[in-house]
Amino acid sequence: MTDLTNTRITLARRPQGAPVAEDFHIEQVPVPQPSEGEVLLKILHLSLDPYMRGRMSTAKSYAKPVEIGNVMEGGTVAEVVRSNHADFKPGDIVLSHSGWQSYALSDGKGLRKLDPDTAPISTALGVLGMPGFTAYAGLLTIGQPKPGETVVVAAASGAVGSVVGQIARIKGARAVGIAGGPDKCAFLREELGFDVAVDHRAPDFAEQLKAACPNGIDVYFENVGGHVFEAVFPLLNTYARVPVCGLIAHYNQDGQAQDGPDRLPGFMRQVLSRSLQIRGFIQTEFSDQRDTFLKDAAGWIADGRLRYREDVVEGLENAPQAFIGLLEGRNFGKLVVKVA
Amino acid sequence: MTDLTNTRITLARRPQGAPVAEDFHIEQVPVPQPSEGEVLLKILHLSLDPYMRGRMSTAKSYAKPVEIGNVMEGGTVAEVVRSNHADFKPGDIVLSHSGWQSYALSDGKGLRKLDPDTAPISTALGVLGMPGFTAYAGLLTIGQPKPGETVVVAAASGAVGSVVGQIARIKGARAVGIAGGPDKCAFLREELGFDVAVDHRAPDFAEQLKAACPNGIDVYFENVGGHVFEAVFPLLNTYARVPVCGLIAHYNQDGQAQDGPDRLPGFMRQVLSRSLQIRGFIQTEFSDQRDTFLKDAAGWIADGRLRYREDVVEGLENAPQAFIGLLEGRNFGKLVVKVA
Repeated sequence: MTDLTNTRITLARRPQGAPVAEDFHIEQVPVPQPSEGEVLLKILHLSLDPYMRGRMSTAKSYAKPVEIGNVMEGGTVAEVVRSNHADFKPGDIVLSHSGWQSYALSDGKGLRKLDPDTAPISTALGVLGMPGFTAYAGLLTIGQPKPGETVVVAAASGAVGSVVGQIARIKGARAVGIAGGPDKCAFLREELGFDVAVDHRAPDFAEQLKAACPNGIDVYFENVGGHVFEAVFPLLNTYARVPVCGLIAHYNQDGQAQDGPDRLPGFMRQVLSRSLQIRGFIQTEFSDQRDTFLKDAAGWIADGRLRYREDVVEGLENAPQAFIGLLEGRNFGKLVVKVA
Repeated sequence: MTDLTNTRITLARRPQGAPVAEDFHIEQVPVPQPSEGEVLLKILHLSLDPYMRGRMSTAKSYAKPVEIGNVMEGGTVAEVVRSNHADFKPGDIVLSHSGWQSYALSDGKGLRKLDPDTAPISTALGVLGMPGFTAYAGLLTIGQPKPGETVVVAAASGAVGSVVGQIARIKGARAVGIAGGPDKCAFLREELGFDVAVDHRAPDFAEQLKAACPNGIDVYFENVGGHVFEAVFPLLNTYARVPVCGLIAHYNQDGQAQDGPDRLPGFMRQVLSRSLQIRGFIQTEFSDQRDTFLKDAAGWIADGRLRYREDVVEGLENAPQAFIGLLEGRNFGKLVVKVA
């Protein structure tokens, strides 16, 4: 084991706008040895998620940025290959937060054992993992869709959006998905059962969205911002709820000032006149719901009401390009890197 | 009775920016006779409230605008002077929504009898009326202040803000009031028991507010917008709640586009990264809490924990100037016009 090489991807520099390959550094280092109480993990799958763009920036966020030269953060599914920890033995499959590398040490904190017989292990990074739980908690706790209401979600073929729309349907609401391109829109309608899918790249996107929501919008699950939000906002009904989960269209702006006019006063005026609720959240806030989520989601997957699609990229060295593509909407489904 | 004259103030034209005297028309018309099932009301007190600016405008709002030539809307306390309605007799004192006039007809719908022995009748327009209830429902249902948390409210010597701060204190929170000028600030501290009062006209207002909130802000009761909100926003803690009750600083903009930069993307980014809740409301949404409010508020007034100040203007003909002054913060306490 001591001769193994750990491939790891570190943050080479902070991106200016959209990340480029040169913002990442790929390096080979010896695999470290686990001390007493530690395990050595071999990373099998790495999750790529939009929040990682925030970690590359020093703009104020809910988490500390990755330091230059440090391994990029990320959720992973790994196999225990050496163990000096009483709770783990070689061969155990665990969910960990080991980042963009092929091997990692852990003292066991935060590891969760996975049972490969109940679901494909990569789903612990997607539909049964952080993205699925984000959709579940944000939609049900903040969005609170009622039967017959209209729920709109963007990036709807992605890891979070696809679960939002399907749970909205399970709860009796009408699900309108927004995605980029006809293939994704067809997938939403035909595979995931969305009532309507609207292509945000269409020149008449705003009109199409309005036509898709004849009774207005009661819940908008916000994970993109940008021109999608602009089209959604006028359609929000009185008492509409907007769980704010992500703003991928703005991540490459790093919080810089934007050209006017200043839309904030008009926004607040509408918040007031339509009694809107805008609520940012991070799924960790709702961690007491995680067991209920896992039970519900597993049941829905088993009875065919909750489906998922993974976009699997082979090889850790391809993670930077895949991540750059994620921010541009080039993935189709939950983006996972097969590391080993 | 048939010879009486009804003085009424109508909307002469829609204001361009801040209302001016010429936007109102004062006219004398004969007092109408009540038909079967109607009462004739003599208006004693007229409430002046910031929301009325919205009714003068066609900008989208939660209520229809007053038509040109129609009587300005408003809450009133009135005496029944003739009655063809079984439920009311001459001499009854009622809360009504009769608008800016000295007499009005009513079919009894929406009238609420007041008992002059339990509280001064004008309080039905203020601390025990719509403004008090707005403060109560917005603060407790949306703001949900916890003991030790910091609650900030602007226009804090006004009808709504003064109640917000005092209820925050009753619930064990720290109350920081924002008002215009040293007299109002002294009143907040010395008469209403606010922990701190900050003058928003001070050149170092933002620094003073920051110093007044060493643990940040957990609840900001928004009723002004503008530069006050700009100073508040950076101080909002993770999970802060912002009940949006009014935006008086923007009412004279009538929803027109504002110069850049565009602060909306940065605002949404902070909503996300700090898990903020922004929630517009109108008190009518919470009308099932009105009885509880009246009981709570009467108790707090009786035991001295809830105080109020009225700014009484004599004569209906002075209502336009008083209302113009209200939008500029020239009132000191709940603004009421003594009509008769």
